[in-house]
Amino acid sequence: MESFTIRTPCSSANIGPGFDVIGLALSIYLELRVTIDRSKTSSQHQLNCRVTYEGEGEETGEVPLDPSANLITRVALYVLRCHDQRTFPVETHVHIVNPIPLGRGLGSSGAAVVAGVMLGKQVGGLHHLDDSRLFDFCLMIERHPDNVGAALFGGFVGTYLKPLAPEDVARVEIPLSEVLPSPAGGLDTGERPPEPPHGIGHHIKFQWAKEIKAVAIIPNFEVPTAKAREVLPKEYPRQDVTFNMQRIALLPVALGQSPPDPELINLAMQDKLHQQYRQTLIPGLEEIVQSMSPSTQQGLLGVCLSGAGPTILALATSNFGEIAERIIARFRKENIDCQWKLLEPAEGTRITKT
Amino acid sequence: MESFTIRTPCSSANIGPGFDVIGLALSIYLELRVTIDRSKTSSQHQLNCRVTYEGEGEETGEVPLDPSANLITRVALYVLRCHDQRTFPVETHVHIVNPIPLGRGLGSSGAAVVAGVMLGKQVGGLHHLDDSRLFDFCLMIERHPDNVGAALFGGFVGTYLKPLAPEDVARVEIPLSEVLPSPAGGLDTGERPPEPPHGIGHHIKFQWAKEIKAVAIIPNFEVPTAKAREVLPKEYPRQDVTFNMQRIALLPVALGQSPPDPELINLAMQDKLHQQYRQTLIPGLEEIVQSMSPSTQQGLLGVCLSGAGPTILALATSNFGEIAERIIARFRKENIDCQWKLLEPAEGTRITKT
Repeated sequence: MESFTIRTPCSSANIGPGFDVIGLALSIYLELRVTIDRSKTSSQHQLNCRVTYEGEGEETGEVPLDPSANLITRVALYVLRCHDQRTFPVETHVHIVNPIPLGRGLGSSGAAVVAGVMLGKQVGGLHHLDDSRLFDFCLMIERHPDNVGAALFGGFVGTYLKPLAPEDVARVEIPLSEVLPSPAGGLDTGERPPEPPHGIGHHIKFQWAKEIKAVAIIPNFEVPTAKAREVLPKEYPRQDVTFNMQRIALLPVALGQSPPDPELINLAMQDKLHQQYRQTLIPGLEEIVQSMSPSTQQGLLGVCLSGAGPTILALATSNFGEIAERIIARFRKENIDCQWKLLEPAEGTRITKT
Repeated sequence: MESFTIRTPCSSANIGPGFDVIGLALSIYLELRVTIDRSKTSSQHQLNCRVTYEGEGEETGEVPLDPSANLITRVALYVLRCHDQRTFPVETHVHIVNPIPLGRGLGSSGAAVVAGVMLGKQVGGLHHLDDSRLFDFCLMIERHPDNVGAALFGGFVGTYLKPLAPEDVARVEIPLSEVLPSPAGGLDTGERPPEPPHGIGHHIKFQWAKEIKAVAIIPNFEVPTAKAREVLPKEYPRQDVTFNMQRIALLPVALGQSPPDPELINLAMQDKLHQQYRQTLIPGLEEIVQSMSPSTQQGLLGVCLSGAGPTILALATSNFGEIAERIIARFRKENIDCQWKLLEPAEGTRITKT
């Protein structure tokens, strides 16, 4: 029996102006508890893999347990098949423990993709795949680098996509359904899937001042990322672009300075490129973002939408409960219930032999 | 006799993706050598001020010596008149020594505005005006904060405009001709000009790795800033916005890391918001920016347009002359002559009693 655990943090993308750029790994962890029983000679499970699940969405059964449909195992199969391994080893059991709320803007699918890539590496014995190569695999499946970058590398990161050599352009445009065959995905067609080009995405680690914690206020409804993208304009006026550029240039520096400067951080967290458009999907968002500032709330640094929402992220140095209660009270007016969590920056994805 | 010198650096704005955001003060200095002879009781000079000039544009006489028309003394008069002083003290002599090339994207007018504001403060004895208040005055005249921010505060800065309180919006929109009366400007109408709102603009200082120098390649033609703005689109596609946001988030961190990472800096200096549109005004620009990289040129970190151009700024750690020569050779194909200078980050504006 071989067993190991993969632990991947949740993450918050954007942090105000950093739309599609900035990611912050936070301290809620998706865990895969994996055992491989190589003493067996054949498996009764499809693709030699049994998937079990506990955590968010467990009661509604929204997370499929079929290894050819579950996102984590599909991603692992993609990595395996790029290395001429058609299935999991006999006999693999993946027990998923997922406390990351689904579809709330806390990077649950980014974490699943990163954990899946790690799973593929580990069960396939693909030890030559380093983190930067694993990032390429992640980006074939989840083309927005902020969440997967944070979940893989940990901490507070800036991520960027590198323009590829001309011969790789076509490959980058491959629809995901071809990378992970639709609809169920992962059924063995016998063909090798397209490998990711090398160096699609890169990241840089920013400093994070140790005093700063993240209060996540999590409303009890989902915003599908696709829908949150649909409401965004295709073009932006120059003055809004300049507004965000002025702030995103400051944000990594401002959040790295110790002690933190609340006025500077609050200003650096303002955004005109996505939050105002998402107000229609998240009642109360504009008022929450605009009404709360360090001058009216002790301990607060700034408030933003976490990823595509609906979670609100408040960065603060104290008074965490009070800050959460004020935001929860505003959502209550819209008849929206919330939970809240006090989070800290997290390490990246780790594999531990158990 | 009272005498003092004001010394203001030139500056390079944008540094690739940081359009209207990032400024870098560089080591060419505008100097005002000022004497005030208070022993006289009246002056034979208009507004009690004699202006003399040496330096760039001296032969063509393009810099006016009339104190109501010269940009530096007009700006000083604006500051004085906001404090109920109608003219310069009897008898002021301002000798301008200006080695900053005019209209080349090296912040000559930004330096003039900053030096002018300092001149007003000093001749008016307005010692309560601190740098952050002087920045407000600068921004009434030059609404783009990157060059004036760098020239005033020095070093490598991110600048941003703060949304003003509603009652100040109208004031911010005052045309410059009303701040500095047209056409000659500064003629004493007896009215007090509109004072700047408080806190229009702010700045943050970024680290700059000591190994990095700036090679400025200065073509022998001018690009008026207004014309360089006209060629820009009013709206930008989302993918170009994301491209720049990913890079501007990295740039300040990348240029602060010692030793510098050439590949990271080169990537962080790419831009899609202004340089490609300015190619029509600056023949050869696209090819220069795209063809030179650390992988093809030892010592090079990255190449960008300095401000609105036509100056090209190459950041490098060695081989400065070779880098300059390659860029000059490309301009020569367009029948454009250039000079080049090796520059370093500079301190901000200083007043020295002499």
